[in-house]
Amino acid sequence: MGRVLDETLAAIRPADDVAMAEARERQDRLTKPRGALGALEDVSIRLAGLAGTCPPPVPSPAAVAVFAADHGVHAQGVTPWPQEVTLQMVGNFLAGGAAVNAFAGQVGAKVVVVDVGVAGTLESAPGLLLRKVRAGTRDMTVEPALTEDEVRTAIEVGIEVARDLVAAGNRCLITGDMGIANTTASAALIAVFTGGDPAEVTGRGTGIDDKTHELKIDVVRRALALHAPDPQDAVGVLAALGGLEHAALAGFILGAAAARTPVILDGVIAGAAALVAAALCPAAVDACVAGHRSAEPGHAFALQRLGLRPLVDLELRLGEGTGAVLALPLVQAAAAALGEMATFDSAGVSDKVT
Amino acid sequence: MGRVLDETLAAIRPADDVAMAEARERQDRLTKPRGALGALEDVSIRLAGLAGTCPPPVPSPAAVAVFAADHGVHAQGVTPWPQEVTLQMVGNFLAGGAAVNAFAGQVGAKVVVVDVGVAGTLESAPGLLLRKVRAGTRDMTVEPALTEDEVRTAIEVGIEVARDLVAAGNRCLITGDMGIANTTASAALIAVFTGGDPAEVTGRGTGIDDKTHELKIDVVRRALALHAPDPQDAVGVLAALGGLEHAALAGFILGAAAARTPVILDGVIAGAAALVAAALCPAAVDACVAGHRSAEPGHAFALQRLGLRPLVDLELRLGEGTGAVLALPLVQAAAAALGEMATFDSAGVSDKVT
Repeated sequence: MGRVLDETLAAIRPADDVAMAEARERQDRLTKPRGALGALEDVSIRLAGLAGTCPPPVPSPAAVAVFAADHGVHAQGVTPWPQEVTLQMVGNFLAGGAAVNAFAGQVGAKVVVVDVGVAGTLESAPGLLLRKVRAGTRDMTVEPALTEDEVRTAIEVGIEVARDLVAAGNRCLITGDMGIANTTASAALIAVFTGGDPAEVTGRGTGIDDKTHELKIDVVRRALALHAPDPQDAVGVLAALGGLEHAALAGFILGAAAARTPVILDGVIAGAAALVAAALCPAAVDACVAGHRSAEPGHAFALQRLGLRPLVDLELRLGEGTGAVLALPLVQAAAAALGEMATFDSAGVSDKVT
Repeated sequence: MGRVLDETLAAIRPADDVAMAEARERQDRLTKPRGALGALEDVSIRLAGLAGTCPPPVPSPAAVAVFAADHGVHAQGVTPWPQEVTLQMVGNFLAGGAAVNAFAGQVGAKVVVVDVGVAGTLESAPGLLLRKVRAGTRDMTVEPALTEDEVRTAIEVGIEVARDLVAAGNRCLITGDMGIANTTASAALIAVFTGGDPAEVTGRGTGIDDKTHELKIDVVRRALALHAPDPQDAVGVLAALGGLEHAALAGFILGAAAARTPVILDGVIAGAAALVAAALCPAAVDACVAGHRSAEPGHAFALQRLGLRPLVDLELRLGEGTGAVLALPLVQAAAAALGEMATFDSAGVSDKVT
């Protein structure tokens, strides 16, 4: 245990500066006013740096991996949703009835579901990977959510899912997540890695009232006080707070980075996981594109720390990977523009008079 | 002349309140927290109202019509780009080398180019509709840009392009535009219809310096002073200020509305044209989805007046239809979610405890 993680960390290299410089220069010769593609120019430069070539290939086909897990902290009453909804929603994903299925169908992304820690038994099914590390985390307000061995195992689940999806031909990975109470663990992780106060980074998740929100902030504060986690020790932080899907998503991001494959991050859960990945290997962030801006306040803290700008901003607050899936066509369009557009010279278009 | 316009205006009906109410109610039963799809829930409700049925069909296939025309006001020095770039860019669109081609290729939209007023001669070519009303407008700071007959003819060009695209099987229309100096005419139109001051609604277009920006504001102010256009007389406003692509786009929007086909608006040029369409027939706005938020300040004035919220916000400032094309997968995803997602009952997913 830990060998796959160590090998993956050793394989990650930062973005290629030469390819990025070529991409910047090429953007300025394309038949459009300089800078006119806005944030998509930055995406295209990032993709070039990751691919190590300019223009970078259009990242297609794509797959979204929905990591599902439960949280012991659910017992503290941080959400009005019953814990069994995690298990039920996995069934909904497999039946094709969830938002992520509808969105993925529209943008041509494949959906895989990974049980990395659901509190309940799932039968083998097409599209489901049975990789349960344990049946939900322990309650972080009472004891460590996970052992360090469980953390490493869950990270390696994510690495191996990424590796297998790339081996199957996918050229873009997308993070998805399902886990009732996982915005609580996300808030705690974000507080540790960004230094944000629990009151600032803890949001209303799927929609909770003021009283539950106060309770949730207090739960995060108590967990941090109990464990006093050290942000330099990413595995220790995950052991203290969980969750299993956060650990697996951190591994998924590391696996994508090692394979130099872009990974589109969904909202606050992915943002928290990306902070873990960045703590383990800062260069892993070069493989990440922020898919969307979550309504959760902690997400902004995470994105700022990661230096990422989200592409989709539609007040989604659903998770599952929905925001990141919607960003896929934008990421693909950014690469296509850099690769396919004519230059002023090649098209015989006059440049502006300066 | 004018018969097609009159028939089109007479055919437009407002959104179906019953279908919209059904869509709202259905959104609340889908397997997600209520409101969790954010702005896409509003889009799905709008599509239901336009289709007159719930769930509405996924708007596919789609076509973007790029209306190209020149502007006499170019002579006033409002842009550093030579006027011949309009003609050259039409060549680039037809060769597939522009940003709109790259984006449309990624999202599966067809591109058609309409010469409604380019100052130069275009040969017949696949994908090009030769519908020139005149070779560019007159200079609005000196005389009316168009005659009222020219305005009506250009509006009817747009109506007929929309009608033909729907007849060819397209179920979503997308506005595109090309015309050096057309942000100047857009600013003037937006000032008239929203009451915004020229200094507030006039932007930097494709990127101009402070001196040119001051000049551009003054040009808009002088045109408004010369013509004193009456916002109640939409044809008269277009005759005073132009441009031919604005008139054709207004017709395109009206044609889409009459065919109860959604039309995704691009940036500030489409926003100005939609104000014209709304002045001719307020219910036409029910067919519109705002594709993206342009960096042009006048666009925000137009959207506010139209009551539309843009979907894509990536600091694009290019035109051509690029922002609206990128919004297509979002619009399609909104419809797919409403039509394809399971309900709490059908999926056996527990609702939250209230």
